[in-house]
Amino acid sequence: MQAPRRIVMSEVGPRDGLQIWPEQIPVEQKVALIDALSATGLTRIEATGFAHPKIVPQLADAAEVLAAVQRRPGVKLAAFVPNAKGAERAVAAKVDEFKCGAAASETFNRLNVRMSIDQALTIFDEIAGVARGAGGIISGVIGTAFGCPYEGPVREDRVLEIAARYAKAGASVVYLADTTGMANPRQVESLSRKVKQAVPQIAVGLHLHNTRGSGIANALAGLDAGVTEFEASIGGLGGCPYAPKAVGNICTEDFVHMLHEMGIETGIDLDKLIGAAKLAEDILGRTLPGMVMKAGKTSELHQPKAA
Amino acid sequence: MQAPRRIVMSEVGPRDGLQIWPEQIPVEQKVALIDALSATGLTRIEATGFAHPKIVPQLADAAEVLAAVQRRPGVKLAAFVPNAKGAERAVAAKVDEFKCGAAASETFNRLNVRMSIDQALTIFDEIAGVARGAGGIISGVIGTAFGCPYEGPVREDRVLEIAARYAKAGASVVYLADTTGMANPRQVESLSRKVKQAVPQIAVGLHLHNTRGSGIANALAGLDAGVTEFEASIGGLGGCPYAPKAVGNICTEDFVHMLHEMGIETGIDLDKLIGAAKLAEDILGRTLPGMVMKAGKTSELHQPKAA
Repeated sequence: MQAPRRIVMSEVGPRDGLQIWPEQIPVEQKVALIDALSATGLTRIEATGFAHPKIVPQLADAAEVLAAVQRRPGVKLAAFVPNAKGAERAVAAKVDEFKCGAAASETFNRLNVRMSIDQALTIFDEIAGVARGAGGIISGVIGTAFGCPYEGPVREDRVLEIAARYAKAGASVVYLADTTGMANPRQVESLSRKVKQAVPQIAVGLHLHNTRGSGIANALAGLDAGVTEFEASIGGLGGCPYAPKAVGNICTEDFVHMLHEMGIETGIDLDKLIGAAKLAEDILGRTLPGMVMKAGKTSELHQPKAA
Repeated sequence: MQAPRRIVMSEVGPRDGLQIWPEQIPVEQKVALIDALSATGLTRIEATGFAHPKIVPQLADAAEVLAAVQRRPGVKLAAFVPNAKGAERAVAAKVDEFKCGAAASETFNRLNVRMSIDQALTIFDEIAGVARGAGGIISGVIGTAFGCPYEGPVREDRVLEIAARYAKAGASVVYLADTTGMANPRQVESLSRKVKQAVPQIAVGLHLHNTRGSGIANALAGLDAGVTEFEASIGGLGGCPYAPKAVGNICTEDFVHMLHEMGIETGIDLDKLIGAAKLAEDILGRTLPGMVMKAGKTSELHQPKAA
């Protein structure tokens, strides 16, 4: 088993994790969470998104949040943008990294954003143009890259084509997203290698969900394939808080804990990261799926109790 | 990444999972669960244990349970036995497989069973003698093989010594147990390979916990090292049901789902296994950590909703 010596974690909790949260989170609490995250050593934080406020009311405050957060040297703040208008709002809000993309499944893409993949890729080019004009980083996301809950298996050549299109538009990273948690480790390893070969000029990242319990195992398979960029969500935030089991992104601090135990560097202070996860629980008033914040780090030893 | 074509799952829920359950489960419900499990294609089921009833009251009904369960051809029923007296009770109850062992950490072993590792290994030999006399399978478990919550890192040579001792006593498999969930994938891969080299005449298995979220990733690392025997618990049963987060064994059906998606054979009918997990939830009246039983299998596609 191989693994890179160092990986880049991209935290997506404040956008992807909070986006469907049913209660509106006040701006100052979002800012407190983002500031706590940017103090951990994380260099990439998806802080918010510029969807239409009627479609994603939770993120209607995107500009306010970005105006209020601390800007730390070396920390790139990202926003998800669905179209050129959103990209222009993101430029005005001084976003560093523009995330956007299409699904690899036609059915999923149409249901998700009511357009074809080809239309979504045209919009990607428009967004990339705006981002390039502002000197921003472009990150392309390929949704349902490992399977679609409607269509089933997704054609790998479709994924490779979209990755090439992103690279051509100036993306510096393409994220393969397991949107509904259908991936298995063999598939992650295989597809990651193929995409790396197809677009060697840009980085390949993974956006994994833990829907069926194998999210971190899939990440391990990605490491074995040499993937160096991972998106994850603080506390495992995401999914629906009212569902019997949260089925969101893999949990940032659990993954970082494992990486550090394996000797893989992230540049992150794990104690501060666990502190940010606990802050997220305090803000949301709910227990999140993250496990290391409950069990403690492996290195925290206990005093034997007297027999 | 390598993996065996076929692995042997050993289900430990009825013993390891239920052992510290706070409410006494009626014999007929335990029997129903074991019968459901033995109908799935599982060939190894740890049905109960023969500890002293005062120490483990939940398993005081061990002989009754074993007298009532269906005996299916090809299904080996195991019991955990702490000493020669327990082994004799297990023989009388027609147990097929005798599980026993010591921890690799002196402090943990003394706190857990109030004796030294050397004393525990002497008792292992006594149990193995009883099991051999009855023609039973002997499975040796090495607790805290990947770290001790009191001592921290555990000496690998200690693990190799204990494995050799088990092999000499006639064990057909040695399980490396990550008793408190401290292992990481690199360590699992490395130690599994070393134990396989040290005792090539017997099988090497893994008993993993998901305490810090990396249990299934650790199992994947074991597959890469060629491990073919895995213990897991139906529904992820185990840990304390009153704790905010169950921190038990890796979940059998989630792991089997991943294996099947990877094309690795188990001989198990996954639908029946998910049915057994739901039965466990019904019996216990609580939601268990297993995720596939909530999300459904990856192969279960959904009908697109009309836009």
